[in-house]
Amino acid sequence: MKHSSVWTLSALGLVIGLVSVSVAIPTFADGSLMGTHTPTPGMEMSHMDHMATPTMPMDGMDMMGDSGDHMAHGMEPIPADGVPAATQDKGGQPLDFRLEEGVKVFELTAQPVRWNILDDVTVTAWTYNGTVPGPMIRVTEGDRVRMVFTNHLPEPTTIHWHGIEVPNAMDGVPGVTQDPVMPGETFTYEFVAKPAGSFMYHSHFEGDTQVSIGLYAPFIIDPAPPENPPDVDVSLMLSEWRVTNGDTYAAMPMMGMEPNYFTINGKAFPLTETINVKVGQRVRLRLMSIGQFVHPMHLHGMAFKIVATDGHPVPEAAQLTKDTVSVAPGERYDIEFVATEPGQWMFHCHILHHTTNDGADPGGLMLVINVTE
Amino acid sequence: MKHSSVWTLSALGLVIGLVSVSVAIPTFADGSLMGTHTPTPGMEMSHMDHMATPTMPMDGMDMMGDSGDHMAHGMEPIPADGVPAATQDKGGQPLDFRLEEGVKVFELTAQPVRWNILDDVTVTAWTYNGTVPGPMIRVTEGDRVRMVFTNHLPEPTTIHWHGIEVPNAMDGVPGVTQDPVMPGETFTYEFVAKPAGSFMYHSHFEGDTQVSIGLYAPFIIDPAPPENPPDVDVSLMLSEWRVTNGDTYAAMPMMGMEPNYFTINGKAFPLTETINVKVGQRVRLRLMSIGQFVHPMHLHGMAFKIVATDGHPVPEAAQLTKDTVSVAPGERYDIEFVATEPGQWMFHCHILHHTTNDGADPGGLMLVINVTE
Amino acid sequence: MKHSSVWTLSALGLVIGLVSVSVAIPTFADGSLMGTHTPTPGMEMSHMDHMATPTMPMDGMDMMGDSGDHMAHGMEPIPADGVPAATQDKGGQPLDFRLEEGVKVFELTAQPVRWNILDDVTVTAWTYNGTVPGPMIRVTEGDRVRMVFTNHLPEPTTIHWHGIEVPNAMDGVPGVTQDPVMPGETFTYEFVAKPAGSFMYHSHFEGDTQVSIGLYAPFIIDPAPPENPPDVDVSLMLSEWRVTNGDTYAAMPMMGMEPNYFTINGKAFPLTETINVKVGQRVRLRLMSIGQFVHPMHLHGMAFKIVATDGHPVPEAAQLTKDTVSVAPGERYDIEFVATEPGQWMFHCHILHHTTNDGADPGGLMLVINVTE
Repeated sequence: MKHSSVWTLSALGLVIGLVSVSVAIPTFADGSLMGTHTPTPGMEMSHMDHMATPTMPMDGMDMMGDSGDHMAHGMEPIPADGVPAATQDKGGQPLDFRLEEGVKVFELTAQPVRWNILDDVTVTAWTYNGTVPGPMIRVTEGDRVRMVFTNHLPEPTTIHWHGIEVPNAMDGVPGVTQDPVMPGETFTYEFVAKPAGSFMYHSHFEGDTQVSIGLYAPFIIDPAPPENPPDVDVSLMLSEWRVTNGDTYAAMPMMGMEPNYFTINGKAFPLTETINVKVGQRVRLRLMSIGQFVHPMHLHGMAFKIVATDGHPVPEAAQLTKDTVSVAPGERYDIEFVATEPGQWMFHCHILHHTTNDGADPGGLMLVINVTE
Repeated sequence: MKHSSVWTLSALGLVIGLVSVSVAIPTFADGSLMGTHTPTPGMEMSHMDHMATPTMPMDGMDMMGDSGDHMAHGMEPIPADGVPAATQDKGGQPLDFRLEEGVKVFELTAQPVRWNILDDVTVTAWTYNGTVPGPMIRVTEGDRVRMVFTNHLPEPTTIHWHGIEVPNAMDGVPGVTQDPVMPGETFTYEFVAKPAGSFMYHSHFEGDTQVSIGLYAPFIIDPAPPENPPDVDVSLMLSEWRVTNGDTYAAMPMMGMEPNYFTINGKAFPLTETINVKVGQRVRLRLMSIGQFVHPMHLHGMAFKIVATDGHPVPEAAQLTKDTVSVAPGERYDIEFVATEPGQWMFHCHILHHTTNDGADPGGLMLVINVTE
Repeated sequence: MKHSSVWTLSALGLVIGLVSVSVAIPTFADGSLMGTHTPTPGMEMSHMDHMATPTMPMDGMDMMGDSGDHMAHGMEPIPADGVPAATQDKGGQPLDFRLEEGVKVFELTAQPVRWNILDDVTVTAWTYNGTVPGPMIRVTEGDRVRMVFTNHLPEPTTIHWHGIEVPNAMDGVPGVTQDPVMPGETFTYEFVAKPAGSFMYHSHFEGDTQVSIGLYAPFIIDPAPPENPPDVDVSLMLSEWRVTNGDTYAAMPMMGMEPNYFTINGKAFPLTETINVKVGQRVRLRLMSIGQFVHPMHLHGMAFKIVATDGHPVPEAAQLTKDTVSVAPGERYDIEFVATEPGQWMFHCHILHHTTNDGADPGGLMLVINVTE
C-alpha cells in the first residue's frame, strides 16, 4: 500500500493537498467491516493508515536490506512549517469546565505547536489545547462529563479514554467505535466518569506517531465520597522524543528512530518541575507511561508504597514497598510516601541513557523532590 | 569459533551438507563437562552453537565497526526453499492423544512451514505440527503424559517444558539434561503433569533463533479436582517477526534485527482471532510472552484482575486490578474479567509501534473482544 | 556544548590533558543553583557533562541524519591503554572492614582494570576495588558505616547508595548533594545502615557510561535481630557490555550501542558461577539489575516466591509464586525456593538474545543451579 501526502499548515487554517490517495478500511479476521468511513465532503485521505511525507532523510537505511518503502513508515519528520509557538509553558494543568444542566463540559482542541522540551530544544508537538501533556481533566466519580473536541491537526484523529469505563461508542477507536474525526471536524464525547482513579486520554489514530508526538493528557477521577487526600498530589506523564538536525520525528523502538530526549510532563531535566514537599507530608505521585518504552522510576532516599495500579486501589495487605517501579507504556502506578528527610532527592528513570539529553548527562527523565522543614 | 553450513531442504526429507564443521561442547566455569554429545551416525555438525548460512545481506553493518563475523550471528535469512505451505490455518488448537496404559501420548513433529501472519505476508516458520503456535497440550494435574517428538528441522533441537515441574532429565536443555535431538531423530519426553496452570513448551536449542521463528506452544494443566471454570478461556501467545524483502529473519532486540511484525497466536491484526463473549460471562485470557520483547497489553473498557502469575494462582487478597499488564518474555499472566458492556473492545500492546504491520497502522499485536447481549 | 579531552592513563597515576574545557553547572527549572562546583586546584574539566574522546569509530552514523557531535555521546571506546589486568577473578565478595569507635570502616577505590567476562573476552572495566561487581558491603541494620572512597579513575565520580535511607548529603548526586569526587581525590561517606534488605551502590556521575562499564556492587543489610536465614544466599547483579573489535564501549539502548555480551556478577555463561544446593535447602537469590535493559529471569524445574521487592519484605499473603521474574534496571527482587529435585537446573534471562555471547548460543545471562542429594 503506497500513498503520500503533502500539506501546508497555517496557524489554525488547514489546506491539505494529497499527491495520491488511499483509503483503507480495516476488515477483521471474519471479514466483517468494523466501521464505516464517511469522508468529510471535499476531503479524501487515508484515515486508517499511514500518511508519509515525501521527505525521507534516511537513505542509508536501504543498506540494511530493507525496502525504503517499508522502512519509511514513521521515519518522516513531523511538519514544522507554519506551526505556531506554544503560548503556555506548562502541560497537564487542570482544565476549566462549564456546567450545562448538570454536565461538566470541557473544550478540547487538537493542534500542533512548537514546544520547548529544553530551553534550546524545540519540538513540533501535536497537542490538546497547546500543551504537552494536554490539560488535566479532573472530575468526581459519577460526574457526567462532555468533551467537545475539535481537530485542528492536518490528519484525522480520535480520543481514547484510557482505563475509563465508557460506553463502547465513546471508546475512540477509529473504524471500530466511531469514524475518525477529520481535520476541521468536531466530535463530542460524553459519559459518566467512573471508576475513581488515575487515567489518561490520548489519540487512538496512528498512535505510534500521534501519541509519540504529544497527543496525551491526564484524566483524574476523584472518589465520591472523598477519601483522605494526600498533601501533595502530582501527575507525571513519561514519554520520549526523537529530534534530529532540528526536526521532530516520532520516537519508536526501532532502528534509527530510537528517542534521544526523554521527558516528564513534556519537559526534560533540568526543565522538569521541582516537587516541593514539607517534612511529614504525604506525597502521591501518579506515574503514567505514555511513550513506547518501559521506565523504571527510582526514588532516592525514601521507599514508597504502590497504592494503586492503573487507577485501581491496591488492598493494603497487597501493597508492595519499593524504591524503583517499572512503568510500562499504558500503565499507571500511584505511589505514596511520607517525606522524612530534608534535602534535594532525585526521582529518575534508572535506564540511565534516559537520564541524558541526546547523550549529555544529566538530563531527561529526572526531577527533584525538594523536601524542606 | 567459525563455522558455516549450507543446506537444501526438501519438503520433509532433509539433505544436509556441511561446508565446515565444528563441535562445541559447553564446559562450565569449573571446567566440568555438563553433557555428552553422541552425534548421529553419519552426521556431524555443531549442535551447541550457531549455524550461519553464507548469505549475509547486511554488509553495511561493517561500518558500525563490527566484524562481519560476529554481527552475522542471527542475521541470515531462514531458508525458505522447498518449505511447504502450512495445511492448517490456526495455531494453538488442542492436540489429540491416545491412551497407552494410563499414559496420555501425544505426537509432536518439528517442521518448517510457510505460514501466513497476514493475508499477504508469509513467513518461513519452524513449527510443532505445522502451526504457530504449535498445538495446545491440555491435560489434568497428575496425568502422566508422554510426548513422542520427531525432529524434521534442518538443525538439532530440544523441547523445554517451561514452568512445569519435570524431572531434570526431561527438562530439554541440550548438553545439560539431554543430547540434542538431531535432524531425523525421535526423542520421547515423559512426566507427570504438575502443577495446574498455564505453561508453555518451546525449543531450548539456539532459542534466540528457533523460538523466534515459531517453535513454541501452550501447555495447560487443569486442576484436579476441577475448579469453577471461566465461561471463555483463551490462550494468547505474543511474539515478533522480522520480514525483509520477503525473507524471514529471527527478530531480536538488536540493530537491524528489530521486528517489524507482531503477532498473537501467530497472526497479526487484522488476522488475529476475535474473542466472542456474552454480557455477564467471565473471561480468562492466558497471556504468554514468548518473543524477545516486553508487551504491555491494554484492555479497553473494562479492568481485569490478575488471577495467576506464571501458572500459579494469586491469593484473592493479593490480586491486582489493572487495565494494562506488562508481559515480559517467558512470563504468563492469567487475567479475568466479567464482560459488562456490549461492543467491540480492543485488546492490544500499548507499545504502539507493536500495533503496526511494518509501520502500517493499525495492525500487529491487537485483537477484538466482541461483547454481545 | 562541545568539548573533548584526551587522557593518558598509567596504572594508578593519572595525567589528564584537556584539549578544550567546559564547565557546566546544572541549574533547575526555577533557575536556582542546586550545587556548587569547587574544582580541584590545577584541574579544570567538565564535571557535570560528558567527556568525549577524539576517537569516534562510527562515521557511518552520520548517514542516519544525525550530527556526529550529538551521536558521538557514549560512542567512544573506553580507554584501555595502560589499564592493568584484574588481580582478582570474582566480584561481589564480602569486603573486610575495620572498627573505629563502633563505626565499621570500609575502603573503596574506583579504578580501571582489564576484566575477563569470558576466557577469551576481556573488557576495560571501571571498578570498585578491582572487580565487577565491586566488593559486597554487608552489615547489620543499625550499624554505623563509613566508606573512605578514593577516585583513581580518569574522570570525576560519586557513589549513590541505591535504596538505602541515607542523609541527603550522603546521597551521592553530583552538583546536588555533593561536589563530584575528582580524580585523585578522596571522599568519605558515612551513615547508619537502614533498613534491612538488598541494596546496591553505584556511580551517579555520567551513569549511562560509568555504571554500564562496571561501577556497581551489592550492599546487603541484615536484619537486627536476625531473621531465619536461608541455607543458600546469593546476590546476582545483571548487566550488559558492548565489545567491538576488542574495544569496550558503554552498552546502551540505542542504535549501534546495543550490548552484545550479557553478564551475571560480571561473567558471561559459561564463566558464570554454579550455585550448589542440597535437596531440601532453602535458596535465596537476590536479583539486582544494574544495566540498561529489563531481564526476565526464568528458573527451570521449580517455582519461586518473591519475598522482597527492592529490599523490602513482601507480606506473606502478597507473595507471588512465579518461575520468571522481570527485573528492570534499578530494581531488586529477592526470590526464594526450596530445592526438591536433583539435577542441573538452568536460571537465565528469557530474552533469548541475552543468552548468547555476541550471537553465539548458549552464553550470557545464564547460570546453573546444581541440586544434589
